[in-house]
Amino acid sequence: MYGYVMNKKALQDRLKRIEGQVRGLQRMVDEDQYCIDVLTQVNSVTAALRGVGMGLLDDHVRHCVRESIEQGQGDEKVEELMSAVARFAGK
Amino acid sequence: MYGYVMNKKALQDRLKRIEGQVRGLQRMVDEDQYCIDVLTQVNSVTAALRGVGMGLLDDHVRHCVRESIEQGQGDEKVEELMSAVARFAGK
Amino acid sequence: MYGYVMNKKALQDRLKRIEGQVRGLQRMVDEDQYCIDVLTQVNSVTAALRGVGMGLLDDHVRHCVRESIEQGQGDEKVEELMSAVARFAGK
Amino acid sequence: MYGYVMNKKALQDRLKRIEGQVRGLQRMVDEDQYCIDVLTQVNSVTAALRGVGMGLLDDHVRHCVRESIEQGQGDEKVEELMSAVARFAGK
Repeated sequence: MYGYVMNKKALQDRLKRIEGQVRGLQRMVDEDQYCIDVLTQVNSVTAALRGVGMGLLDDHVRHCVRESIEQGQGDEKVEELMSAVARFAGK
Repeated sequence: MYGYVMNKKALQDRLKRIEGQVRGLQRMVDEDQYCIDVLTQVNSVTAALRGVGMGLLDDHVRHCVRESIEQGQGDEKVEELMSAVARFAGK
Repeated sequence: MYGYVMNKKALQDRLKRIEGQVRGLQRMVDEDQYCIDVLTQVNSVTAALRGVGMGLLDDHVRHCVRESIEQGQGDEKVEELMSAVARFAGK
Repeated sequence: MYGYVMNKKALQDRLKRIEGQVRGLQRMVDEDQYCIDVLTQVNSVTAALRGVGMGLLDDHVRHCVRESIEQGQGDEKVEELMSAVARFAGK
């Protein structure tokens, strides 16, 4: 069972909202709205997505990584976590 | 007429693809896929969105900012551009 | 004359302060301070450096780019600016 | 004993090099070098610092967090780690 299963409903709600925001962006472009306003909206969708990413990382550490370490099998998980953090932090 | 109007079709195509990726994320969560895989997909949607943002900034400088400066009215535009860049770069 | 020449003193002051912060980091490591505290300090040096970068970009747009556009030679500058923004924003 | 103690020498070498890069920036400004070139150098110092931060996080997870979890006392450490990751990733 993966960590995020516990918050599956909240995660899906956030993804639904993000989908709506992306459709909102399409509308803004359709209506030829000012580029800086579209960009501002792009930034807020990006921030929402990064919030989802942060939530996934958080669940992952609290559940998957933790459990593996408790069972004495943390090596691979820690390795995997650190590359995920590196990619997420844009390194 | 705003700069991005010229590439409106390309911009809309990218936003459609991003909308599809966000729905793909919802499917991954529905199917309880592994959190690190979901996170990897979140990162690629974020990168796609940042690409759209970069494209908007680019169009904005090449068209709106440039035109304003050529007409001797660049002050406000340069101001606005720099705060957009700051927000975009996450400062 | 480059834009930042105007704020050369302020820019040098910030760089001196950043140099001091980097030496502070070396001291923290020497004294075996807690890794999360060192990391917090790394983040604040990074933020200070990004502030310097933002200032340089700002001067560049207000002076170099603007002047080139006013002289009808903005193409190359706009190109160069946009790749600088892209690298700065970590795209 | 903190994790980074193990790589203390390597960490100090990287910080020394970063200090040298910051002094190099001061020289570039002194010599009125072109702002985009200074900015490029700012970006590479920022990247070097983020590499140090990533190394600290990595050591922290492999040692402090892991040990705490193995001793059944991981809660606080996991909490602390996740806020460090959030700050580091600029969330």
